[in-house]
Amino acid sequence: MHQDKFYMKTAIDEAKKATDMVYPNPKVGCVIVQNEKIISRGYHKKYGAPHAEAEAINNCDIELKNATMYVTLEPCNHDGKTPPCTKLIDPNKFKRIVIASRDPNPIIDNGLQKLIDKGLEVEFNICEEEAKFINRRFFTFHEKKRPFVILKYAATLDGFISENNGHSKWITSKKSRFSVHELRSTCDAILVGRRTIQSDNPSLTSHGVGTDPKIVILDPSSKVNEEYKAINKNTIHLTNELVEDKPVDNIQSILNTLYSLNIQSVMVEGGAITLTSFIDSGLFDEIHTYYAPKLIGDGISIYNSKKKISDSLNLQILKKEIFDNDIKITYYNKRAK
Amino acid sequence: MHQDKFYMKTAIDEAKKATDMVYPNPKVGCVIVQNEKIISRGYHKKYGAPHAEAEAINNCDIELKNATMYVTLEPCNHDGKTPPCTKLIDPNKFKRIVIASRDPNPIIDNGLQKLIDKGLEVEFNICEEEAKFINRRFFTFHEKKRPFVILKYAATLDGFISENNGHSKWITSKKSRFSVHELRSTCDAILVGRRTIQSDNPSLTSHGVGTDPKIVILDPSSKVNEEYKAINKNTIHLTNELVEDKPVDNIQSILNTLYSLNIQSVMVEGGAITLTSFIDSGLFDEIHTYYAPKLIGDGISIYNSKKKISDSLNLQILKKEIFDNDIKITYYNKRAK
Repeated sequence: MHQDKFYMKTAIDEAKKATDMVYPNPKVGCVIVQNEKIISRGYHKKYGAPHAEAEAINNCDIELKNATMYVTLEPCNHDGKTPPCTKLIDPNKFKRIVIASRDPNPIIDNGLQKLIDKGLEVEFNICEEEAKFINRRFFTFHEKKRPFVILKYAATLDGFISENNGHSKWITSKKSRFSVHELRSTCDAILVGRRTIQSDNPSLTSHGVGTDPKIVILDPSSKVNEEYKAINKNTIHLTNELVEDKPVDNIQSILNTLYSLNIQSVMVEGGAITLTSFIDSGLFDEIHTYYAPKLIGDGISIYNSKKKISDSLNLQILKKEIFDNDIKITYYNKRAK
Repeated sequence: MHQDKFYMKTAIDEAKKATDMVYPNPKVGCVIVQNEKIISRGYHKKYGAPHAEAEAINNCDIELKNATMYVTLEPCNHDGKTPPCTKLIDPNKFKRIVIASRDPNPIIDNGLQKLIDKGLEVEFNICEEEAKFINRRFFTFHEKKRPFVILKYAATLDGFISENNGHSKWITSKKSRFSVHELRSTCDAILVGRRTIQSDNPSLTSHGVGTDPKIVILDPSSKVNEEYKAINKNTIHLTNELVEDKPVDNIQSILNTLYSLNIQSVMVEGGAITLTSFIDSGLFDEIHTYYAPKLIGDGISIYNSKKKISDSLNLQILKKEIFDNDIKITYYNKRAK
């Protein structure tokens, strides 16, 4: 059992080698152990390329007998871009399969049962939490049936995202803004409220860093017209769909819509009303905050609702990064709905 | 010249080994080089103990001839707790002395000139900035004739240091508060405004972590009486001395008073009016900020004056630390007055 965890952590390290090129697939790693030695490793490199299990089997140059496979995600049992992984796992070569996490995507068609039917010993939920965390966007999408929600803001040290006139150029440094463009390129969509469009007329692209996400605009009173840069043929312009009076009460249905459009991750970029309604809904997974070394004393604040000091958001710090003299803190919402 | 820098950086590394036990002396390191080899090192370990030069000479077990001494601070020429360092530096053993920074404390009595008079080749201002930075409290005190000023606040992510009723217990975690107690124990004084005393009645001690700093209370209207915990025989209670109407206009004279009381470093712990007046005066050296993962939407803000987004504070990030899920960011004021 202790050894299973050790080998699985090695498989997780393999999974971590993968990049966003696997999208919309998850990142998966695999190691093969025979006579208590790791004899092969592999990871899924790119959407359409061999899965981690196939990579590990192909990378192996020793004859397999009574081997154990450690794989971070349940092997698939369906014919897609590649043959089903369950087919590759031969009971004459493998005795035991250890799986970190089951695959929540119904398309994989119960690979675990197929392996049991083939006569293999199967164990699962070994280092499950750690393995799922690597693919938190994928798991959130399939398990919670909503996109993974990233809230992002840039603020002064006293918590203002703009001056009172809406002016926010530029709170943060060029390097911070580049980091935002990188983050955008990893998301399927960017979501903003209509005031952000009207006051900044932003392009909301990745500025050439990578893929441009779709743009989602919340505009219940239909005030945004085609003159704004963010309106293009891919824009998801939500107007009449926002039937509830209080913005917070619309969040679940917005996420339902985005889920139905196959959007796995959405980055909410403001403004204050939109950020506040996501925070109050509890329907968010991460907050990416950029703080610039400025104090302005007045302006539009990050959060326009009210809480007490004793109310904690249950956020966990995932990462701290410095961009010139700005700091980026990435928080994970441990109690996301 | 290039080699001088290399050896001096080694001497600076020696200086960095020193702890606050040297206080009120600065941290000093020394290396001795002979035939292009470092043959000895030393640093000043404790107030009253041998200086870095004496340590390096004592640590040397090779006969010195034509050696070069690299020392991060100008050797002293006065009889204090230990004999003058200039006396130990024998021209029959040393040919050259390289000094990172001159000593701003007049008590040392021009050690540099004494060394020249003894017939030694003397160079100075090698890696000066780096060497001075280690002892920034000491240099600020002697060069600017005021204490080194550290502003400290704990805030929510939206920049509030308390609720509107003044309630601020506890914004940050126990670990963050312990780090504040540690910081206090390294300062000669803590300074607060009278509202902080009246609303929190804090003890303002290091809570047993180390030495308790003196307490300075700004109380122009004499509202704080002896019933408050912070009032004790060591408290510096400033009342009638604060003659200017605008708090910011009193800062220079407050610092003059503290300088005359031999206070090398002062930690300003609030509240908002006091912090704001120090920020607006430009008379501060560092800001130690603690941010807790909370958003409260309303309360008493860090800063109660007004600036534009285009106004930068010219702060440089020195350090980022995590205490549970709070983040501490330490800023250095590059343009302190």
